[in-house]
Amino acid sequence: MKILVINGPNINMLGIREKDIYGSDNFESLNEGVEEKARELGLEVELYQSNIEGEIVTKIQQAYGVFDGIVINPGAYTHYSIAILDALKAVSIPTVEVHISNIHKREEFRKKSVTAEACIGQISGLGVYGYSLALSGLKQYLSERKYLLDR
Amino acid sequence: MKILVINGPNINMLGIREKDIYGSDNFESLNEGVEEKARELGLEVELYQSNIEGEIVTKIQQAYGVFDGIVINPGAYTHYSIAILDALKAVSIPTVEVHISNIHKREEFRKKSVTAEACIGQISGLGVYGYSLALSGLKQYLSERKYLLDR
Amino acid sequence: MKILVINGPNINMLGIREKDIYGSDNFESLNEGVEEKARELGLEVELYQSNIEGEIVTKIQQAYGVFDGIVINPGAYTHYSIAILDALKAVSIPTVEVHISNIHKREEFRKKSVTAEACIGQISGLGVYGYSLALSGLKQYLSERKYLLDR
Amino acid sequence: MKILVINGPNINMLGIREKDIYGSDNFESLNEGVEEKARELGLEVELYQSNIEGEIVTKIQQAYGVFDGIVINPGAYTHYSIAILDALKAVSIPTVEVHISNIHKREEFRKKSVTAEACIGQISGLGVYGYSLALSGLKQYLSERKYLLDR
Amino acid sequence: MKILVINGPNINMLGIREKDIYGSDNFESLNEGVEEKARELGLEVELYQSNIEGEIVTKIQQAYGVFDGIVINPGAYTHYSIAILDALKAVSIPTVEVHISNIHKREEFRKKSVTAEACIGQISGLGVYGYSLALSGLKQYLSERKYLLDR
Amino acid sequence: MKILVINGPNINMLGIREKDIYGSDNFESLNEGVEEKARELGLEVELYQSNIEGEIVTKIQQAYGVFDGIVINPGAYTHYSIAILDALKAVSIPTVEVHISNIHKREEFRKKSVTAEACIGQISGLGVYGYSLALSGLKQYLSERKYLLDR
Amino acid sequence: MKILVINGPNINMLGIREKDIYGSDNFESLNEGVEEKARELGLEVELYQSNIEGEIVTKIQQAYGVFDGIVINPGAYTHYSIAILDALKAVSIPTVEVHISNIHKREEFRKKSVTAEACIGQISGLGVYGYSLALSGLKQYLSERKYLLDR
Amino acid sequence: MKILVINGPNINMLGIREKDIYGSDNFESLNEGVEEKARELGLEVELYQSNIEGEIVTKIQQAYGVFDGIVINPGAYTHYSIAILDALKAVSIPTVEVHISNIHKREEFRKKSVTAEACIGQISGLGVYGYSLALSGLKQYLSERKYLLDR
Amino acid sequence: MKILVINGPNINMLGIREKDIYGSDNFESLNEGVEEKARELGLEVELYQSNIEGEIVTKIQQAYGVFDGIVINPGAYTHYSIAILDALKAVSIPTVEVHISNIHKREEFRKKSVTAEACIGQISGLGVYGYSLALSGLKQYLSERKYLLDR
Amino acid sequence: MKILVINGPNINMLGIREKDIYGSDNFESLNEGVEEKARELGLEVELYQSNIEGEIVTKIQQAYGVFDGIVINPGAYTHYSIAILDALKAVSIPTVEVHISNIHKREEFRKKSVTAEACIGQISGLGVYGYSLALSGLKQYLSERKYLLDR
Amino acid sequence: MKILVINGPNINMLGIREKDIYGSDNFESLNEGVEEKARELGLEVELYQSNIEGEIVTKIQQAYGVFDGIVINPGAYTHYSIAILDALKAVSIPTVEVHISNIHKREEFRKKSVTAEACIGQISGLGVYGYSLALSGLKQYLSERKYLLDR
Amino acid sequence: MKILVINGPNINMLGIREKDIYGSDNFESLNEGVEEKARELGLEVELYQSNIEGEIVTKIQQAYGVFDGIVINPGAYTHYSIAILDALKAVSIPTVEVHISNIHKREEFRKKSVTAEACIGQISGLGVYGYSLALSGLKQYLSERKYLLDR
Repeated sequence: MKILVINGPNINMLGIREKDIYGSDNFESLNEGVEEKARELGLEVELYQSNIEGEIVTKIQQAYGVFDGIVINPGAYTHYSIAILDALKAVSIPTVEVHISNIHKREEFRKKSVTAEACIGQISGLGVYGYSLALSGLKQYLSERKYLLDR
Repeated sequence: MKILVINGPNINMLGIREKDIYGSDNFESLNEGVEEKARELGLEVELYQSNIEGEIVTKIQQAYGVFDGIVINPGAYTHYSIAILDALKAVSIPTVEVHISNIHKREEFRKKSVTAEACIGQISGLGVYGYSLALSGLKQYLSERKYLLDR
Repeated sequence: MKILVINGPNINMLGIREKDIYGSDNFESLNEGVEEKARELGLEVELYQSNIEGEIVTKIQQAYGVFDGIVINPGAYTHYSIAILDALKAVSIPTVEVHISNIHKREEFRKKSVTAEACIGQISGLGVYGYSLALSGLKQYLSERKYLLDR
Repeated sequence: MKILVINGPNINMLGIREKDIYGSDNFESLNEGVEEKARELGLEVELYQSNIEGEIVTKIQQAYGVFDGIVINPGAYTHYSIAILDALKAVSIPTVEVHISNIHKREEFRKKSVTAEACIGQISGLGVYGYSLALSGLKQYLSERKYLLDR
Repeated sequence: MKILVINGPNINMLGIREKDIYGSDNFESLNEGVEEKARELGLEVELYQSNIEGEIVTKIQQAYGVFDGIVINPGAYTHYSIAILDALKAVSIPTVEVHISNIHKREEFRKKSVTAEACIGQISGLGVYGYSLALSGLKQYLSERKYLLDR
Repeated sequence: MKILVINGPNINMLGIREKDIYGSDNFESLNEGVEEKARELGLEVELYQSNIEGEIVTKIQQAYGVFDGIVINPGAYTHYSIAILDALKAVSIPTVEVHISNIHKREEFRKKSVTAEACIGQISGLGVYGYSLALSGLKQYLSERKYLLDR
Repeated sequence: MKILVINGPNINMLGIREKDIYGSDNFESLNEGVEEKARELGLEVELYQSNIEGEIVTKIQQAYGVFDGIVINPGAYTHYSIAILDALKAVSIPTVEVHISNIHKREEFRKKSVTAEACIGQISGLGVYGYSLALSGLKQYLSERKYLLDR
Repeated sequence: MKILVINGPNINMLGIREKDIYGSDNFESLNEGVEEKARELGLEVELYQSNIEGEIVTKIQQAYGVFDGIVINPGAYTHYSIAILDALKAVSIPTVEVHISNIHKREEFRKKSVTAEACIGQISGLGVYGYSLALSGLKQYLSERKYLLDR
Repeated sequence: MKILVINGPNINMLGIREKDIYGSDNFESLNEGVEEKARELGLEVELYQSNIEGEIVTKIQQAYGVFDGIVINPGAYTHYSIAILDALKAVSIPTVEVHISNIHKREEFRKKSVTAEACIGQISGLGVYGYSLALSGLKQYLSERKYLLDR
Repeated sequence: MKILVINGPNINMLGIREKDIYGSDNFESLNEGVEEKARELGLEVELYQSNIEGEIVTKIQQAYGVFDGIVINPGAYTHYSIAILDALKAVSIPTVEVHISNIHKREEFRKKSVTAEACIGQISGLGVYGYSLALSGLKQYLSERKYLLDR
Repeated sequence: MKILVINGPNINMLGIREKDIYGSDNFESLNEGVEEKARELGLEVELYQSNIEGEIVTKIQQAYGVFDGIVINPGAYTHYSIAILDALKAVSIPTVEVHISNIHKREEFRKKSVTAEACIGQISGLGVYGYSLALSGLKQYLSERKYLLDR
Repeated sequence: MKILVINGPNINMLGIREKDIYGSDNFESLNEGVEEKARELGLEVELYQSNIEGEIVTKIQQAYGVFDGIVINPGAYTHYSIAILDALKAVSIPTVEVHISNIHKREEFRKKSVTAEACIGQISGLGVYGYSLALSGLKQYLSERKYLLDR
């Protein structure tokens, strides 16, 4: 099973950026944590980060026929990128959306996710540990497809 | 570590209720899965279900000083129960909200969570497996409190 | 054919409550009228009233496999109870919603019905006689299912 | 007792138009059903259909002093015709509004009725049988005026 | 003069719940303060608390013909309970609404009171002392009915 | 303790103005009632009325360092005067807002108070007696500051 | 100078229709009053009434090159007829809009005029006398075009 | 018959201010025109202009018992002055609102009149001639009170 | 292949009506252009124009079983005629909507098309040439039905 | 005549992406069709596709002084890219917007086009054939500029 | 060059009022800073402050023909004074609006400026230094009028 | 002191793009003006322009630890780029936002700035001279930090 892990704009600033919201983990430890969890679950992962909306769109398109699942934290693009939404719909690869902070506790405009509509589910507020949970959830989904239908 | 798992209205109809949305798992297997996962993680759990908003409020109040964490699926009350929101704020016990279906793919009124504002995070769309992930996330949070500050 | 007739909060105050809106019939005569009409149509009815949203949810769940149809006047819960909506969807029993007063002539917030979406139809403004019409309509629907598909 | 039954735009296409929404009854059988029910109830009815908003307004005006009650299905004009609303208010003849489909299950713009504010009540979702119920309700109202005040 | 004092959900958590908003008084001292003030004013009071919306509705119904006035803090239900609004309208007992905190300084959804429309007035932001002022105001209203007409 | 009592536009028309809303007390008796209550409570009061928004702003500014508390009925300015809101915030003198009628029973635009955000609390609907309650509440607040923190 | 006076739907019901809103003048006396005023001002008038939106559109089109001014009371169409708005713009004949009742005192949806945007001005609330004022205003405008530019 | 003519803020700049909107008449000729028309109609008029909202409120209050009618152009205050609305309601003197330009052709915020709700009618877009029409309409109303009831 | 070309209200004023928006073509040349294009494409066309909404509804109904395609410019009715929308849905004849001007550059209320939902596509802003393009598109669609599914 | 044909994000996924919406044509056949049509019309075309909003902006800027017309399908950026809107306005090259699917039949957020305001017109719902129509329309516009003024 | 510097309500409380928002500069030092900067730039300034909206309107009117430019901080009136907007438009004197705090970081209602529409530009968030920048900008504008057209 | 000056999409088209809005300065003279002003103030500047949102995000990230201040004109991204907002928050470098035109005089969607929330202040409408004022303001802020707290 091959999983693509995509981080959107400013996630690479983790550890520098607003620590009261995002905690003190930094981007390197986030990546290491993801790779470690993947090994533990027997998953192959590729890590990708970009600040550019259209590059993320391209990366998702290139995943078509190559990856079995996607974990994505679209960062700020979560709230307005119909282009990423369309890319996810176009490739139809099972995807889990992750947010480090609890988007329901923040500004009104961060409560709405445009991209979640193309995902099987969303995990938010559980810090960088949310990526590990997303990998577990994705593996479970791909292994058994036994629970929720992807409606 | 003692965890209270609360299920709100109609979750007890799982397996009967709209299978195209909630899958074919039934409520008994959901409960067994939660208990099994709890044992695996070394957590003590109590399971609670009620269709009555005010009873859920009372149960949360009674958890004060007794439980270390809460996993809650408030069902339909997610979208309008300020009373449950207030109860969760009053006791200040770390809580993870779970939804079986992906609320971002459903009717507009199901996209908004009133109660998530009092939780550390939310997991939605990962079926009954979301409860297992919530228990893992809660344990991680309580063990280390090392990642996201509960802002 | 067994029909469950559910009255929500404050319907039991009929005859006491705001007579200029609800007329001078009282709750007892409403119940007698329903029973008389049922006999006339050859239907078996059970009458139920509760002020508690969650109890109405439970009653609807218990109707599953027992009743052939439901006539419901959810009272104030009409306008915000997603929990009752979900219960009606879960059991999928043909249901007709009744309102004693014409909800389209009243406050703006009373014009919207949250629960009607799970019903085959709605009758409003025809006073307590609306219950009789609902029983007739339900019998017709169950006998022949010949007219409107329950879309 | 003389009752005027008015059908608005496209109701004459019944049986041709979107059968999944309106069922397979056609306009002729609708009319026959109304006449049959009227005979059964001892009511005199006149049937009228027009696609033109202003003609319906004129017809309502002409009913003044001639008819005792009106059953109206304003079709699409239900949702925006203030002219029909005004005509109904001007003549003050007791009126019941009928919709074949359940308007609460359809597009958002069909949930609002502009014209119902000038009616004593509304019946929706009970198919062509709704016209029969409307005639019964109207007769009851005119015979006794004993239940709901026309507020 | 008999007065019913109703406290809604989570008011019983006073002293535990968010002290920066609700102050450090606890629920027992609130109750004692109310009883003391009642004695001072020569009023008979009954204290009632429930977390369940429908039980509060029932309590208000039972007050009909028994109590002369009601002091109510509907807690979270203030903002969405049309059922409590309807119950207050049904019994038509003069009622004063109390809020411990100033609802105009809090979240947008707490600024709107659904229930105040059925009350003669509202006192908010004056802490537990607001209950004493409500009792005084109610006595004045009942004694003289000399000031504001209950429009 | 020195208290400034400010009445905004048209309060001076009391007794002339819309008696069905504001009752039959006139402005003189309102003022006498306030002075009487102040004597009873051992408070020193100054009475001020103006129809001009900016003059009220100036009066509030001049209260700085002179008065211990303010009771204000901003009349129509309640609903749009950010200038009065700012003045109250600038001087930070504990203030109670009073409304003679219950603003929650009137037009939609009267339900919102712009100025209450800068007050410790608000009393509405208790007629001219509301001023007496406000003086009591303010004295209690200033004497003990023991209950609600001014959040 | 030739003036076309157009009355929209239900204006012909004047004297029958809701007298508390529209007064006791009837449609004949309205027409006579208009003709009398026209004679007094030396204007030639044609009176036209229709309940059909599209016929009013056609009448306005036919006025092109024939009439110097229009006085129009579009009745209910005032609030939604973009077709009448477009017709008035197409012919560019100076037009004054008249309403018998004060539309600013009525339902929210009657406060907005879609058609006034194509008129030089609007007179509302002055009863049938408003037509006389409109004729005066139109004559003044056409005679001198000395005051407000038709922006 | 004594009529008070009130002009609000910036009307005194007529002739200087935005001529493409307000035409080339100046404030002096406006006043002369009003006085001339009044003489013609046998009315006694007092002219008043102020830029200060509260002074206009005071002037309206002082008109109580002195004037029989008011013609008011509240200028910019038309759109937000609840204080002027309240003053007009308090004195209950028949009032006609005038606007020189057609407020329905301008910015969205100028289409709404807050003050018109307290007037018998409104004339807009007919330039300074609108004041003459308002005087005529007011005289007609006061002389006969025969047309529209002041609802 | 038989095509019905329908023009709604005021399109017949082309060449007279607002030339800066609609260009200088007139209605005759529009019709000639359509007929010429039809001959070129080998299509049989019928031209129809009406200002009356309900007549357009009737015309669409009559097209059932007679025409293979419809080109419609509903004029002002585009923005509010649910009746035309329903007629197009009822007959289910492939339809292309045309607008002479670019509706996206005009008033906010012209940007929304109510009727386009029942069409296979829409062409706007390409002047009278848009009709020619619509005929080409419709022929292509009917000949091959090879491109976009009519979703 | 030189025409630039720009395709935005995910259009390159045509044939892979959601076939029920976009049909079974793929991106290569779309491009071939455009080139073939261009040859037929005697136009020189350059084809450009990018997923990156800012690159599309740059491409439009570079078209200044080089191309005579633009055909653009901005894909998802249609609905929110003010940057592309500004670029089109900056270069002022006649542009036709194309959408393969009928945007009026899809999600609410797809009905609004931000970019169409800078175009002469828009074609939607006619599948890949819409590009051919756009080229024809653009040629007609550039050849004669005889129809609609670019308002 | 003569410049009028206008400060609206509560700006005179600077140094007293909410220091965390407005900094510790007081009103005297603000005035001195303005005068010093004016001397440095060779401008003649007059300083004016009022809490009364209508007085600010009058002051702006009096500036007509006397001052070459205006620097204005309308304080709270920024957000609702159409009267000040109209006064600025009436005199058409080049004006720069200044805000001490960054209005985009504050409450939602402070983000909108009603008055900025009549100004050439706006400076916010740069503290009392913003006045100096405004004087520089205004001088540059008046000296050269070489940059932005006052659209 | 090192300052980074960022210009967003289409600012490089200055002098070509809509001269009635942006004036006749071109991008080169803008850059020269900035460099000249920087020299005058003794500041080191780097000039950067990009049309790509994500590249601007990256540039801001790279400024971390390198620059003391930022002057940014985000162009169209001002109104929707949460990604740029997040980048500015992440690096926490004092930033002044500049707009050449007065955004308060333009389309409704240009009045809102998403990015200004992460800036100390904003200057708009003062043409290219706004950049000079921004540099002055930023120097003042960095030199003394004596005025407005960056709230």
